Amino acid sequence: MTEPSPADEGWIDEHHQGVRYGLAGQVLVDEQSAFQRITVIDSERYGKGLLLDGCWMTAERQERHYHESLVHPALCSAEAIERILVIGGGDGGTARECLRHAGVRHLDMVEIDGRVVELSQKHLASLGAGCWNDPRFRLTVGDGIAWAAGCDDASYDVVIVDGSDPAGPAEGLFNRSFFEHCRRILRPGGVFATQSESPEAFREVHIATVLLLQEVFGHADPLYGWVPMYPSGWWSWTFAAIDGPRYKKPDPQRAAAIAAGCEIWSTRWQSGAFEAMPASIERELQT
Amino acid sequence: MTEPSPADEGWIDEHHQGVRYGLAGQVLVDEQSAFQRITVIDSERYGKGLLLDGCWMTAERQERHYHESLVHPALCSAEAIERILVIGGGDGGTARECLRHAGVRHLDMVEIDGRVVELSQKHLASLGAGCWNDPRFRLTVGDGIAWAAGCDDASYDVVIVDGSDPAGPAEGLFNRSFFEHCRRILRPGGVFATQSESPEAFREVHIATVLLLQEVFGHADPLYGWVPMYPSGWWSWTFAAIDGPRYKKPDPQRAAAIAAGCEIWSTRWQSGAFEAMPASIERELQT
Repeated sequence: MTEPSPADEGWIDEHHQGVRYGLAGQVLVDEQSAFQRITVIDSERYGKGLLLDGCWMTAERQERHYHESLVHPALCSAEAIERILVIGGGDGGTARECLRHAGVRHLDMVEIDGRVVELSQKHLASLGAGCWNDPRFRLTVGDGIAWAAGCDDASYDVVIVDGSDPAGPAEGLFNRSFFEHCRRILRPGGVFATQSESPEAFREVHIATVLLLQEVFGHADPLYGWVPMYPSGWWSWTFAAIDGPRYKKPDPQRAAAIAAGCEIWSTRWQSGAFEAMPASIERELQT
Repeated sequence: MTEPSPADEGWIDEHHQGVRYGLAGQVLVDEQSAFQRITVIDSERYGKGLLLDGCWMTAERQERHYHESLVHPALCSAEAIERILVIGGGDGGTARECLRHAGVRHLDMVEIDGRVVELSQKHLASLGAGCWNDPRFRLTVGDGIAWAAGCDDASYDVVIVDGSDPAGPAEGLFNRSFFEHCRRILRPGGVFATQSESPEAFREVHIATVLLLQEVFGHADPLYGWVPMYPSGWWSWTFAAIDGPRYKKPDPQRAAAIAAGCEIWSTRWQSGAFEAMPASIERELQT
């Protein structure tokens, strides 16, 4: 947790387990919503950025790593991609990357904190870009866990969880009951994706999340990449599906349609990122 | 550059382009050698750590990422591994990982700053571990660039450059003349390895280094991994060889002999790390 303050010599830091990661800049907004503390800053290195409860979430010039890694392995591999559910993702970056796929006809985004959406639309407009006005996009401000529980079976082709760490409003996004609903509401051939924390700074949560998804879905695999502003900079996203690890096989046509607009993601990068599991994590997942 | 100081509320930071990465702890040593400022700290999260000229180099509980990534792709793939040259590497971690390979008969380490070796032996003893007393190990305190220029042709099976950023004493470790000598002193079937900076925080140096090594050796490929304490946490190592990209094909017997002792490296991890090239870097390397 941090105490971002414009008085601290111009640095805004996240503190985590005796480590701090700070950006030089100034605080633009620092307020308490009904759910969490929301801080918007303007940084020298990465432009405007967002913290929730003192933890770095995203920044204008450091958001592609996270959003491309979370979205494209799922959107390139699900059997169909007509109906998408995004839980969380209030900054708009995940919806924006999904809507780059022409096959998407309807995207529900369920974000618990409407104030995150409002502040992102105002200060981080490049994150959501055109998503807010896309006719395929529908925002619901509400509880994504209740939303998943209330959906009919087989409602979506892809379910994406874009939440923060498992504390505060995001805590329920990492348990069996929630994952079972996510599986239930997927159509056959569907793919589930979630951020799954750092294998270094949140090692136990990371391993527990992967193992639980493997139990619930039958097939789940973590992909390892980078988000420099998150604790340790080393991050993971985990993909799950009922009918085999189809998330490892991107559709060539869908991949080709988005490739030129990606900074990080490519079919090559993705195949490497699924393989780049550190030896000690691999041993622990196998036992 | 940073100003590590025990008075700064107990934080020691590296500052880089409007970003700071700090560890909570205390400064044990802070002195100027003939070549650079050397700082040894004791941190809560990663144990004792080393900074050179205010930049994080290594720490007791965060050093495996770097050393395993640099050493094993080379030591597992060179045709022979009898004679090894390490340039830099004064903390001893690179030599330690090399000497885990039973096939190594002689290892020359040429470190410019003897004070780094002395302070590492005293404060970071687990880094070098048994290397300092291994009969196969020979330390020379001197200029690695001059050493490479002075070697006979085909002197080593593997040449490893374990230097700091291309400023100060390490500046000459990133240029054509030095790389040409590294190639010249390699035996046929030999492999060259160097840290090659961050594709995020040192993007231009990273790309220039890879391109230059491809020109000089004919074959060179970067591998992407993590060093949480380095700028952006996202790091690269580049491997080169004259007779094709043999560094991508680890010898199964050598790999099996070291696998159980590795935290990060495995043949699986390595194959992924060579593929996990971000799309924008791949485009730039191809043009």
